[in-house]
Amino acid sequence: MENNITANKVRSAFGGESQAYQRYKVWGRKAEDEGYPNVARLFYGIAYAEEVHAGNHFEVLGDVKGDFLVASMAGFGLGDTKENLEGAKEGEDFEIHEMYPAYLRVAEMQNEKGAIRSFKWALEAEKAHSELFQRAIDSVSNGNDIDIDEVSVCGKCGYTTTEGVPDYCPICGAPRNRFKSY
Amino acid sequence: MENNITANKVRSAFGGESQAYQRYKVWGRKAEDEGYPNVARLFYGIAYAEEVHAGNHFEVLGDVKGDFLVASMAGFGLGDTKENLEGAKEGEDFEIHEMYPAYLRVAEMQNEKGAIRSFKWALEAEKAHSELFQRAIDSVSNGNDIDIDEVSVCGKCGYTTTEGVPDYCPICGAPRNRFKSY
Ligand SMILES: [Fe+2]
Ligand SMILES: [Fe+2]
Ligand SMILES: [Fe+2]
Ligand SMILES: [Fe+2]
Ligand SMILES: [Fe+2]
Ligand SMILES: [Fe+2]
Repeated sequence: MENNITANKVRSAFGGESQAYQRYKVWGRKAEDEGYPNVARLFYGIAYAEEVHAGNHFEVLGDVKGDFLVASMAGFGLGDTKENLEGAKEGEDFEIHEMYPAYLRVAEMQNEKGAIRSFKWALEAEKAHSELFQRAIDSVSNGNDIDIDEVSVCGKCGYTTTEGVPDYCPICGAPRNRFKSY
Repeated sequence: MENNITANKVRSAFGGESQAYQRYKVWGRKAEDEGYPNVARLFYGIAYAEEVHAGNHFEVLGDVKGDFLVASMAGFGLGDTKENLEGAKEGEDFEIHEMYPAYLRVAEMQNEKGAIRSFKWALEAEKAHSELFQRAIDSVSNGNDIDIDEVSVCGKCGYTTTEGVPDYCPICGAPRNRFKSY
């Protein structure tokens, strides 16, 4: 990693993913408490995907050592599960439509291949997250838990699906044994 | 939570704890790869303690909803296990000697009881983390894994010990069934 402005974007993305992980763990416990075990699994599975994103960004920065002030956008608030899901969907949409596209432009300008890959993988995964959170909002709005089987997450890129574990990840090509299910 | 400047400190602390969690997960995998399974368990156990701190800070902010730009100091770099442990110890010492004492002064000035409690619990736990990381540095410097039994962490306050699970947490009073071991 050579260029400072891209490194700065990777640190911001790392900070954002790190905070999303923790937010989803808290909101998952709230969903359990409110009697939505499938929404809880969805939060926990997607939390793991954000951990994969955070880890990838951190590894891209491996040789840029030291302490930095990291500025990241993050959502706060502990409401009921419907509100929490709306906050989650909003955060994913910000990453899909603003954050990752903007960060990708910067990384591409500086030809930072590691950052480009890490941002692209995250961006693709966030699209699935946004859709799944929308389905959960629709269910919970009608007083129902979301009707899903296992939430499967690729440990290499964070791709997330409720359609069963694929033989190879459609985003990064990792084999099925790299998936974790919730 | 009523006062903005304390809320801002709680958000910064949440961002710092969230990033520490992810850093320790990456460094734990590195320790496993280098043949230090006990150092890896130490990283994973302490990561869980940081998750407890992040969750507590997030809950204190429960009624301050919305999106915020969060600025937090965070350490970066993926070196060998000795370097990673030194980075970890440095981060804990920053929290013990600067960050949490300063944030506590602000929270006390504004009489924000939830923030005071959450900061105090984290500060006490970080002292144990710093000591354990120092022991690990000493061992790894001699080419040895750290000689520890289970790493036990209080799920209420993040207190961390390798001396077995106590009947009641010495920091927050939680009973032994609230502990998780690594
Ligand atoms: Fe993500
Ligand atoms: Fe996401
Ligand atoms: Fe993948
Ligand atoms: Fe902590
Ligand atoms: Fe700590
Ligand atoms: Fe405790």
